[in-house]
Amino acid sequence: MSILQKTVDKITDLDYCIMEKARERVDNLIKPVGSLGKLEDIVVKLTGITGKLHPKADKRSVIVMAADHGVCDEGVAAAPQSVTYIQANFMTKHKTGVCALASSVDADVVVVDIGIKRDVGNPNIINRKIKYGTNNMVNGMAMTREEAIRAIEVGIEISQNEIKKGKNIIATGEMGIGNTTPSSAILSVVTGLSPIDVTGIGANLPEEKVLDKAIVIQNAILRNNVDKKDPIDILSKVGGLDIAGMTGVMLGCAANKVPVIIDGYISTVSAIIAYMIEPKSKKYMFASHSSNERAAKIATEFLGLSTMLDLDMRLGEGSGAVLAMPIIQAAIDMNDKMITFEETDIMKI
Amino acid sequence: MSILQKTVDKITDLDYCIMEKARERVDNLIKPVGSLGKLEDIVVKLTGITGKLHPKADKRSVIVMAADHGVCDEGVAAAPQSVTYIQANFMTKHKTGVCALASSVDADVVVVDIGIKRDVGNPNIINRKIKYGTNNMVNGMAMTREEAIRAIEVGIEISQNEIKKGKNIIATGEMGIGNTTPSSAILSVVTGLSPIDVTGIGANLPEEKVLDKAIVIQNAILRNNVDKKDPIDILSKVGGLDIAGMTGVMLGCAANKVPVIIDGYISTVSAIIAYMIEPKSKKYMFASHSSNERAAKIATEFLGLSTMLDLDMRLGEGSGAVLAMPIIQAAIDMNDKMITFEETDIMKI
Repeated sequence: MSILQKTVDKITDLDYCIMEKARERVDNLIKPVGSLGKLEDIVVKLTGITGKLHPKADKRSVIVMAADHGVCDEGVAAAPQSVTYIQANFMTKHKTGVCALASSVDADVVVVDIGIKRDVGNPNIINRKIKYGTNNMVNGMAMTREEAIRAIEVGIEISQNEIKKGKNIIATGEMGIGNTTPSSAILSVVTGLSPIDVTGIGANLPEEKVLDKAIVIQNAILRNNVDKKDPIDILSKVGGLDIAGMTGVMLGCAANKVPVIIDGYISTVSAIIAYMIEPKSKKYMFASHSSNERAAKIATEFLGLSTMLDLDMRLGEGSGAVLAMPIIQAAIDMNDKMITFEETDIMKI
Repeated sequence: MSILQKTVDKITDLDYCIMEKARERVDNLIKPVGSLGKLEDIVVKLTGITGKLHPKADKRSVIVMAADHGVCDEGVAAAPQSVTYIQANFMTKHKTGVCALASSVDADVVVVDIGIKRDVGNPNIINRKIKYGTNNMVNGMAMTREEAIRAIEVGIEISQNEIKKGKNIIATGEMGIGNTTPSSAILSVVTGLSPIDVTGIGANLPEEKVLDKAIVIQNAILRNNVDKKDPIDILSKVGGLDIAGMTGVMLGCAANKVPVIIDGYISTVSAIIAYMIEPKSKKYMFASHSSNERAAKIATEFLGLSTMLDLDMRLGEGSGAVLAMPIIQAAIDMNDKMITFEETDIMKI
């Protein structure tokens, strides 16, 4: 049996029994019932994920999947593809956006070369390259079905390595010039929305080129005859190695009962693919922020999760996902440190 | 000259010269321009507040103003007034919502008795009681004009004490059963909206009593002949001691060039009063979260600030304000730890 199949088979429902106990406790903390809103839901969900009434999320990693995209040949990105390689290297020097924010919340940054276009040779970047960037999806499949599965399995294995090291919460991130293009292609296929309705500026593509980008996406979808019911088919035909890798991280976390945080647009698309592969995986996911990329809200609503942060961010790299970590920690502290009405003279309201 | 007048006179514009330099640096960090959204705006504003290119916000307090409200006699609150006293005491034992969340973000909780209905005698609660709760505003002024000014001045002095202790960021909070009622009265007066449009459930008032609450607010406004142009008149006639105290904290922070974080609905109403007293004070404020109390969004939009967190919270106590602290810290870390395009081979986009 494949690693992917074994992983999917391991994903179970949450522990609803402990969640009921957790909800009862949360409802009895000395505050009006429901008044801590999403913090209450977060900690109850964490108890269901971990099976513990007092879960922890203090050992933190963000896994950044770096890969290139052949569709960049169509002029869909403002930056040259070499920036994927350069930024991945700067991440190992702790100099990029996600590094600054991860250090702020005490999270390790794990950088994975899952498909950068050139050889990297940086000992601090994990080399799990599937291929030197995807093929240009306008001309055919972005990758083979086998490559898509292997990319997901890389994500599974990397997440499991982090979990073995003791990490109890993992954020997803990516670095891949051009990757909003396959993301919008996937979102168009799964939602049935027209590419023009789900295509945005990505990393500052000039507005006047967004229509061209949508046409490229439309062409790629038409050329590839995508089966919208088959997530692996979608990934291989109009997806990306970074997107597939993040899908794997999400499935790996779910299989190991570890909470996983979705970043912005691209990461949410990975989450949709993970959900299509195994719907129960969604129960292990937390949405972090409302990205400013045009179709991010559509993707989040399609997935059916609720974000915590509203910061107009659209950097990617996992930068928004790590910022959810102190919020999740606050939910845990609420659960651990507040007392219940029973321990006071106050009547519950 | 009064403390209030002296404080207001000290409030200046931000340092736009340093903000321009800060914006230039932020625009040159290795990310697409604007892609870190509000984090970029936060750190630029902090440079303007502090006059430093690399500001800090690592010494943190939340000041909780505790007071009672005579209007509770009208049945506007689900909880008895004694809960103000009880919760203020539990805060000093680190057991309430704001305590759990403040400990999560390493902030001190400073509890002030600015008008609790009974004697407190807890050495860990600062006794600056103006009076034993406000008068029932349905029968006349909630407090005298002098009392309103003194309550603001208490807030100014408490914030200055914290700043003298080295605190470089302060959050505002309150504990006062019934205090969404004067908040909605104030909001109705300043916006011209009908009380029914700005009245919500507060701390779980049954929905069927919300109309009665709005009628109480309407009666109080009519009875008191409020001058909607005079913030002190509004505060004294249909306000509260906790609300006035938070207004003072905001003015005190602005006068001392220290950033101040607004919590939810009640705190935002205090901010509106501070803004009416001195418009420049708004430049020193950060809005934290989008509270779930019905008129919170109206209040935030009226003030004209943008929130960072979307957590469906409505507890008060400063619980949402402290959660903005790690986000503000992340903005600072972005500014401190990322490198600029000039230090790389990457072309700016």
